[in-house]
Amino acid sequence: MNDWLAAPTRVPDTATAQLALARQGTLTKPPGSLGQLEAIAVQLASLQGREQPRADRVWIAVFAGDHGVAAEGISAFPQAVTGEMLRNFAHGGAAIAVLARELQATLEVVNLGTVNDPGDIPGVRRRIIAPSTANFCTSAAMTQPQLEAAFAAGVASVGEAVKASAHIYIGGDMGIGNTTAASALACALLGEDPAILTGAGTGLNAEGIAHKVQVIQRALQRHADADTARERLRRLGGFEIAALAGAFVAAAQRGLPVLVDGFITSVAALAAVRLHPDVRSWLIFAHRSQERGHARVLAALEAEPLLDLGLRLGEASGAAVAVPLLRLACALHNSMATFAEAGVSEA
Amino acid sequence: MNDWLAAPTRVPDTATAQLALARQGTLTKPPGSLGQLEAIAVQLASLQGREQPRADRVWIAVFAGDHGVAAEGISAFPQAVTGEMLRNFAHGGAAIAVLARELQATLEVVNLGTVNDPGDIPGVRRRIIAPSTANFCTSAAMTQPQLEAAFAAGVASVGEAVKASAHIYIGGDMGIGNTTAASALACALLGEDPAILTGAGTGLNAEGIAHKVQVIQRALQRHADADTARERLRRLGGFEIAALAGAFVAAAQRGLPVLVDGFITSVAALAAVRLHPDVRSWLIFAHRSQERGHARVLAALEAEPLLDLGLRLGEASGAAVAVPLLRLACALHNSMATFAEAGVSEA
Repeated sequence: MNDWLAAPTRVPDTATAQLALARQGTLTKPPGSLGQLEAIAVQLASLQGREQPRADRVWIAVFAGDHGVAAEGISAFPQAVTGEMLRNFAHGGAAIAVLARELQATLEVVNLGTVNDPGDIPGVRRRIIAPSTANFCTSAAMTQPQLEAAFAAGVASVGEAVKASAHIYIGGDMGIGNTTAASALACALLGEDPAILTGAGTGLNAEGIAHKVQVIQRALQRHADADTARERLRRLGGFEIAALAGAFVAAAQRGLPVLVDGFITSVAALAAVRLHPDVRSWLIFAHRSQERGHARVLAALEAEPLLDLGLRLGEASGAAVAVPLLRLACALHNSMATFAEAGVSEA
Repeated sequence: MNDWLAAPTRVPDTATAQLALARQGTLTKPPGSLGQLEAIAVQLASLQGREQPRADRVWIAVFAGDHGVAAEGISAFPQAVTGEMLRNFAHGGAAIAVLARELQATLEVVNLGTVNDPGDIPGVRRRIIAPSTANFCTSAAMTQPQLEAAFAAGVASVGEAVKASAHIYIGGDMGIGNTTAASALACALLGEDPAILTGAGTGLNAEGIAHKVQVIQRALQRHADADTARERLRRLGGFEIAALAGAFVAAAQRGLPVLVDGFITSVAALAAVRLHPDVRSWLIFAHRSQERGHARVLAALEAEPLLDLGLRLGEASGAAVAVPLLRLACALHNSMATFAEAGVSEA
């Protein structure tokens, strides 16, 4: 039943990468002077298998789900917000809805299960797994079938994106309590101390963070016998985190570059890479979040994000903000004149 | 004849800033979770005097001029490139031309004087001061009338931008040798050692940089008696650097927010702030350049740029790349739903 996870990822096209790199050297600018924008263009050329890469059609999928661990009082916001925000995504008032509109990106919102179920909402895909995960302080967050259903939601989302000929896939998260789940999962995957990986989430004070660390410590003790990435994800993750991990594996298998958002999605990316190491090549990291644990997770992934703007909202908002950088990198790569074309002298 | 320099700048609207800040607190996100994007929206609201700021109409002026100090062999590229690039700007092949097109920004190209004069080019404004500045190792870079002509070019550019109802003004530079002039000027303005402020420019190796440092040291010794910002700018600057400084002062006087590009423009901004300290409030810093001296100049201006992408091209390219961040910051600020509007529970 996990055969799909074993399927190979697409292999980046190194020959095209070489062509793209050579092209960068002919453009009317000092070599290397466009810094990370040059690297991004070459990387996209390699992943898309075309010398002239594109980032026009962007697919943004936001997965929402509730977390049993919210019962431990680890969030500054009430759990009802997860369901309420689904309506806000669909009605265009949430940050990611505004950004998707501005970027003319497709926004797919997937309800994986919320305690405060908003019911059918036009523009929200219902793939309800359960009203929430279980509280991982007392049991596994997900059953095996729940984990598989979450994976399947991610795989299906990537299938839709591929069908729509997306150039870039972005995954986002919504779920009260999900920084607690992501921190716990990252600790388990990295063998790291919760004090290093636990932050303020939506806005805890120092006392709140100390409590959150204790909750995570209890969970890690309870699930210390989980010894695979899959089992750690099942016991400590969440519906949206597992869906994102599944989506990232599927995107790598389908050859669709992923622009990774902030802390939650980076932990999902870490889980995806632990499930299938070849996924790493398909990940581009959008930004360094303000959330405390993100730097450590990025380091583990050897990721150098494009932006560092003190964002900590989630919802894929940081990845969306980085989309124009990809588009401008492609435009420069594809449309600048060469020294020969422009009759400009070289160094 | 310098009366215009003494005219007051517009005063940022603190009442509107308060309204914008209050609005940020009502939007459906954890308070502060959009980081620098929140700060930028509030700052633009304050500068534009409207609670709903805008960054749609962007004016990009690139000033080109040659430098007498090129005779000292301080650049990796031949001096002919300055004139050649004017044609490349106008024909759409240069980086800034590609970016302006993608951003639907207005691109104004101003020829202040090049050794290799390309003559009349449609789309390039001719305001020729001289074929180049003088070599500041042996005399002042500019005469008093030349400095004033350069200032006037900047003031006129801002006048055009205001006439076009621009929301944001961006200044850019082109001129072989201009990192040498900018480093020398920054050293004089900051009382700093050339070794700290001198970098590779378009691509010098270590030997080339060491030579460039010596050239700058000679120039600083020669002009050690220059004791005002204006006189330091005249003796060590360049046509495009003085035009940018003039433009930044004029933008502040006209109440037009400036998005500052990289090393050259930041040194021009430093000169502008030394000429008229109230200019500082009108400057938003786009990016941290790879060019060595930029960090020190940014620190002197207490600037925290939005981007750090290893860019070092000039031409206003780094500022252009930051434009989408301003636009998205405005869109989020203006279009996100409030908690009350969306029926979402607060913390």
